[in-house]
Amino acid sequence: MISKLIAAIKKTNAPIVVGLDPMLDYVPSFIREAAFAECGETLEGAAEAIWVFNKGLIDATYDLIPAVKPQIAMYEQFGIPGLTAYKKTVDYAKSRGLVVIGDIKRGDIGSTSGAYATGHIGRVQVGSQSYAPFDADMITVNPYMGSDAVNPFIKVCNEFDKGLFILVKTSNPSSGEFQDRLVDGTPVYELVADMVNKWGAACPDPAPEACGYTNVGAVVGATYPEMGKRLRELMPGAFILVPGYGAQGGKGKDLTGFFDDNGLGAIVNSSRGIIAAWKKAEYASFGEGGYADAARAAVLDMREDIGRALG
Amino acid sequence: MISKLIAAIKKTNAPIVVGLDPMLDYVPSFIREAAFAECGETLEGAAEAIWVFNKGLIDATYDLIPAVKPQIAMYEQFGIPGLTAYKKTVDYAKSRGLVVIGDIKRGDIGSTSGAYATGHIGRVQVGSQSYAPFDADMITVNPYMGSDAVNPFIKVCNEFDKGLFILVKTSNPSSGEFQDRLVDGTPVYELVADMVNKWGAACPDPAPEACGYTNVGAVVGATYPEMGKRLRELMPGAFILVPGYGAQGGKGKDLTGFFDDNGLGAIVNSSRGIIAAWKKAEYASFGEGGYADAARAAVLDMREDIGRALG
Repeated sequence: MISKLIAAIKKTNAPIVVGLDPMLDYVPSFIREAAFAECGETLEGAAEAIWVFNKGLIDATYDLIPAVKPQIAMYEQFGIPGLTAYKKTVDYAKSRGLVVIGDIKRGDIGSTSGAYATGHIGRVQVGSQSYAPFDADMITVNPYMGSDAVNPFIKVCNEFDKGLFILVKTSNPSSGEFQDRLVDGTPVYELVADMVNKWGAACPDPAPEACGYTNVGAVVGATYPEMGKRLRELMPGAFILVPGYGAQGGKGKDLTGFFDDNGLGAIVNSSRGIIAAWKKAEYASFGEGGYADAARAAVLDMREDIGRALG
Repeated sequence: MISKLIAAIKKTNAPIVVGLDPMLDYVPSFIREAAFAECGETLEGAAEAIWVFNKGLIDATYDLIPAVKPQIAMYEQFGIPGLTAYKKTVDYAKSRGLVVIGDIKRGDIGSTSGAYATGHIGRVQVGSQSYAPFDADMITVNPYMGSDAVNPFIKVCNEFDKGLFILVKTSNPSSGEFQDRLVDGTPVYELVADMVNKWGAACPDPAPEACGYTNVGAVVGATYPEMGKRLRELMPGAFILVPGYGAQGGKGKDLTGFFDDNGLGAIVNSSRGIIAAWKKAEYASFGEGGYADAARAAVLDMREDIGRALG
């Protein structure tokens, strides 16, 4: 799977993933009102609004980007209808040729992780039939419970050619509370990085286009550039998913250390900065009606910012 | 909320939570076949089977126990229909007077944790209306991302009188890979325990029935009794949710250290050992048709085992 992502990054020349994390107040009022007119001010109405919003965003950006990353929490907050919108978004993005990274941050004891893996990247057996319930291409995984929480995801990746990004050093301000604590001089996130190498060795992508990267990548926040540089060196086989660009404070020039010498090895996520670009002063001329064009303009600006930084 | 759980434990004299973690092969064939006859061998058919199975389990045990803990992964593996069965299970268990602990192990950066909290224990605003999408009483939370991943859950708990169990020391064999690592001589799980105390102070339950416990509890595996004893002392305000009894190896006599001097302070989960009791040799006489009665017998045996241990 990582070879497919890398090929898409090379084709678009954009190591960029658009975070489809729709809060209702990012959705232009004309979309919300139409959805509420159709479904009422209900969970179904909210779900319809975010789905229509997402479809517009995908249509306006799919030719520029390799991947999207829907954050499932933003759908889960609207219950079953919200999760139905998540599933529609995954399917539609794939139909447009995008790699879909489900940002689900799951992780549990063995059999339970197995159920999550089955539901999100695998197939579940029902009698004589089998189904791919959510069917993302890649997902994020929380490592706090250790190897037997991660191994079931790896098993499913190997069976269905899917990929993972393990949380190593997250972008949020308090990520250091546990992740940065020193164990014999080594921060916990580097212990996780060591395990990412081990997990990656068990989950290779044999295609030449994988450029040596495995199907087990890592999440490292844009807000910690020095750690990004160090982790890039420590995890030579792990593609890095980099959240925290834009709204959380990360900028292109901070990100060069996350990439390898070939300008590969990382993909940078922006959510609010793109999907809510129409609400920012610099893209205000697009207006509410031009929200998708504003998102396209923001993607082009981000591509330029990162391209300039990478030289 | 913890006062409500404690009152229910005292009333039933059973510090026991039944884990509603239905794998399809735990479901007796007559239920599966009826569901497939109605809905086909589809995700809907699987969801119908686990819902009917759960309803039977709840009906057979609700008068003996204070709480149930549906593991959402087991529902998520069946996609949207599975999650609909999760929601029906939560609602039905509450209608039977049970406290519902949603075992969701979520955790993410601030706004994203906020969305999970809203969806699972809070209310979401849609225009002029608001809804409680999943509406569990308590949920499990993963602390790896630190305070700003946990605080949004606390905010929602305070607003709607709900409760949390933070993963501190999990029951699985590899939980020690990160959780046991020593930071200046202190294991990571004790650092998490310190934060549980802090989070609990910000999330009190003022009712006298809370007996000093807060709405922020902790998950500590039955498989690590020595650590349970130590963590009981370190977190005097945290009720402990204890997974790993039965199928994972924990026994009543191992669990006394998890409880306080009043025999309170912990609630022990059993999943497979109860819901799949009918498949075990000792309850085989109940037969498939008596799966719910087998579960009731297993609850009674577990209550006796723990009661004997606590004296």
